[in-house]
Amino acid sequence: MDPRHFLTSLDWSSAELRDLAVTALRYKAGGHGRIHGGPDFAGQLLGLLFFNPSVRTRVSCEAAMAKLGGSAAALAAGSDTWNFEERDGVVMDGATQEHVRELAPVLSGLCAAVGIRRAEKMSGGASADAAGAPWEELRKDAFLHAFARHATVPVVNLESNAFHPCQGLADMATLLELRGEPRGERYVLSWAWHPKALPVATPHSQLLAAADLGMRVTLLRPEGYDLCPEVMGAAQERAEAAGGGLEVTSDREAALSGAKIVCAKSWGRLDAYGRAPEDACPEDGLRDEWIVDGAAMARTDDAHFMHCLPIRRNVIATDEVLDSERCAVAQQATNRLWSAAAILARLLG
Amino acid sequence: MDPRHFLTSLDWSSAELRDLAVTALRYKAGGHGRIHGGPDFAGQLLGLLFFNPSVRTRVSCEAAMAKLGGSAAALAAGSDTWNFEERDGVVMDGATQEHVRELAPVLSGLCAAVGIRRAEKMSGGASADAAGAPWEELRKDAFLHAFARHATVPVVNLESNAFHPCQGLADMATLLELRGEPRGERYVLSWAWHPKALPVATPHSQLLAAADLGMRVTLLRPEGYDLCPEVMGAAQERAEAAGGGLEVTSDREAALSGAKIVCAKSWGRLDAYGRAPEDACPEDGLRDEWIVDGAAMARTDDAHFMHCLPIRRNVIATDEVLDSERCAVAQQATNRLWSAAAILARLLG
Amino acid sequence: MDPRHFLTSLDWSSAELRDLAVTALRYKAGGHGRIHGGPDFAGQLLGLLFFNPSVRTRVSCEAAMAKLGGSAAALAAGSDTWNFEERDGVVMDGATQEHVRELAPVLSGLCAAVGIRRAEKMSGGASADAAGAPWEELRKDAFLHAFARHATVPVVNLESNAFHPCQGLADMATLLELRGEPRGERYVLSWAWHPKALPVATPHSQLLAAADLGMRVTLLRPEGYDLCPEVMGAAQERAEAAGGGLEVTSDREAALSGAKIVCAKSWGRLDAYGRAPEDACPEDGLRDEWIVDGAAMARTDDAHFMHCLPIRRNVIATDEVLDSERCAVAQQATNRLWSAAAILARLLG
Repeated sequence: MDPRHFLTSLDWSSAELRDLAVTALRYKAGGHGRIHGGPDFAGQLLGLLFFNPSVRTRVSCEAAMAKLGGSAAALAAGSDTWNFEERDGVVMDGATQEHVRELAPVLSGLCAAVGIRRAEKMSGGASADAAGAPWEELRKDAFLHAFARHATVPVVNLESNAFHPCQGLADMATLLELRGEPRGERYVLSWAWHPKALPVATPHSQLLAAADLGMRVTLLRPEGYDLCPEVMGAAQERAEAAGGGLEVTSDREAALSGAKIVCAKSWGRLDAYGRAPEDACPEDGLRDEWIVDGAAMARTDDAHFMHCLPIRRNVIATDEVLDSERCAVAQQATNRLWSAAAILARLLG
Repeated sequence: MDPRHFLTSLDWSSAELRDLAVTALRYKAGGHGRIHGGPDFAGQLLGLLFFNPSVRTRVSCEAAMAKLGGSAAALAAGSDTWNFEERDGVVMDGATQEHVRELAPVLSGLCAAVGIRRAEKMSGGASADAAGAPWEELRKDAFLHAFARHATVPVVNLESNAFHPCQGLADMATLLELRGEPRGERYVLSWAWHPKALPVATPHSQLLAAADLGMRVTLLRPEGYDLCPEVMGAAQERAEAAGGGLEVTSDREAALSGAKIVCAKSWGRLDAYGRAPEDACPEDGLRDEWIVDGAAMARTDDAHFMHCLPIRRNVIATDEVLDSERCAVAQQATNRLWSAAAILARLLG
Repeated sequence: MDPRHFLTSLDWSSAELRDLAVTALRYKAGGHGRIHGGPDFAGQLLGLLFFNPSVRTRVSCEAAMAKLGGSAAALAAGSDTWNFEERDGVVMDGATQEHVRELAPVLSGLCAAVGIRRAEKMSGGASADAAGAPWEELRKDAFLHAFARHATVPVVNLESNAFHPCQGLADMATLLELRGEPRGERYVLSWAWHPKALPVATPHSQLLAAADLGMRVTLLRPEGYDLCPEVMGAAQERAEAAGGGLEVTSDREAALSGAKIVCAKSWGRLDAYGRAPEDACPEDGLRDEWIVDGAAMARTDDAHFMHCLPIRRNVIATDEVLDSERCAVAQQATNRLWSAAAILARLLG
């Protein structure tokens, strides 16, 4: 029997995801030390494979395992490990030394579950093979899906090119905390300028989280900065099925008016994937207009401010916003721990 | 009283090693979570010192400690740590900052046991001192043995220049699983071509494992690719004492005929140690002849295929072999966990 | 309510520190495995943020958590993580990606406590911002204090520019072990030559440890190698209040005579901070005179030899001294574990 994985929230129903978020908040309410009312993972090891740096993700996963009585081992792919191959039929006499067809069963034999963070940089990839790959290629998340296909234990996506579902679930838990029942309330995912072109995985999963809760979601971005059409289509369908909706606009004033949540995030143009860094950067002219500052927040309905972190202060949002009472960014990060615990409990429990 | 170490299987009797392998399989049979019927390592830390990258070794050690109730801490020597000195009497005003005469007692005071992976590259060493060292020098495993001499807790060799006894024990457990009682059965350690010259530690320990089980062991390799004579001598003695034997040949057809196990592995010529990479590589002409493919396996007596991993697909062995029912490579890797647990239980229990 | 931190021993009274050292020794007496009579940290994670390499510090912290039933996660800042910003009001469009105003609350949400090692190199800093900073700037330990200010859980200084209080506490425990009640006994902190200019954090904390125990402390160093005047003033005050005293001299013969403890350590001149490496090195002419050898130890009152490690053999001290019965360096390092446990138990218990 194949294990169930957590690769994208799209593989899970809105109701299942809400259940996970509720479980996360129940765990959180239990206080310090071991989680009560959850499974006991004594003797179980979570393997963590990081192709990209991480603070929140790694520490939240290690803390979640500790709170469930288990252990975690984090490997930095490339420095701690070999280079991995995911293409079938390749003659491996080049740069890659281990195939996912071996790696996945091996880690399945050693670990109770495996978390993987592998996202290529938008401009210039993390591995030689992926360098310069366009979005249509990278969105396949070839390594992650090949690993999951050959794994016999649950696999958790800790951020791929296309999705960051752990962040999405933490945001969902945070929205439930902040708003009680957010169904039908206005949620704005607001693009912001950043000196480098950033990937779209996180905004994808954040948008889906609000949609799954049935919020009235607005994607607020400059022309040319649309997210992936397939993800937008799924978000709209799920938002509407859950009692909300989805719209896309570049009209900041209209979008912010009445918003209960402003979630800021920068990302690059989809057609910037695979370009040289200097060609991929968001245009400088967008910087001042798109920062989230006090004036922007003043247009909302006393909205809470969200961001996945790390955030460049006074670039994405101002000190005024980040230091205000309505800023929920640390709360989101804390909920990464409880969400990870809920996911692991569900997959392994 | 000096602690007992696990530096090479040659320090342990064939009977002791078989006992460890049997213990490993008993632990494995106990299923998920904590190991039942083993010691409780609560509050005990296994220190892991890696001079070389690792996937299986590190994760299997961390998982073994978790399953015995303990913890592990892995250090990447060189990046996480200082540079270490093992030569006595040196005036340390150069590149090394800490002597093993301090390091070993210190880690002995902080850890219940210490695992060390330190293998120089065959051509161009991992540390400046070792670069270009010949086999006669590297086989001494100077750092490992100096560390063990000054340690007051058990030391486990996680792969040195000369031996990889944890892999050997995992292979022994796998052979018992695959064959029940393998005594007198035919085991072939089959050399394969690889683009770089690889060390001999793993084939040494694999050959010894089959010998300790009393198998009829064949070292199948091209002329010039002999293993270390002292290891071969010990393997022959132990094989014969256990009811088996050892032979060396370059005749693939004869060697594979009747084999119950084919274990593939590449290694460089002993006289390639210390040479420039381009001089050390196995000859290209050997590539096609020595790959393990379906035709090679068809000559055997329905043999299982083994390899220590990582393996370059379609270089060492073909997809056909690795994806077949008789392929045991993931099983070997899984047994790394249970073997490590058996070793640690024996040394610390 | 703000948590109490362990950033410098100067924030703690001499009596409190002695209590911690006594607790450390009580834990040590309990033997292997879990600590008895201490708190239970099951489900609690210690976050460790290393900007500099570490052996003793990291392993002692991980072992301490394991012995108290908890877990630890070590991050290598810079490779595992983003670059951090601690200055308020900065427009973060440069090299730093995450502000301590986010990082500290986030890690506070994920961890029960956070340990931080961040010391700039004396000549050429670890981060671009700090490169070449003078002592007056570096002694502020801006990142550490900003982190503590914004953290909601206890923060432990694992070595900053100014202090290494965990080493100080381990030394205090060792002095109690070696001498029973060391009050009024002679303790010499003896400067030694080293090929590179080393920071003053460790000698600061070591000197303070002896002072807090009421020892008669002698700082023995060549002219020009004084420690920070503010630290020396505090050390004198605390030493005198506890029944001891403090003097500074460059007269080795007089200083070593009657000493019960010789603690060797190299450090650079305070005015070497921020200089180019070649300008910052201690003068070669000092090398032979200041090494701690058998002749130096023979002048003492059968003193024990201490050093924080790592130590360059036959540069700081000779083999004869390090291999003698009176050498306590491994004992000091072992006490890092029990001291860390006492600190964590006090802060979190």
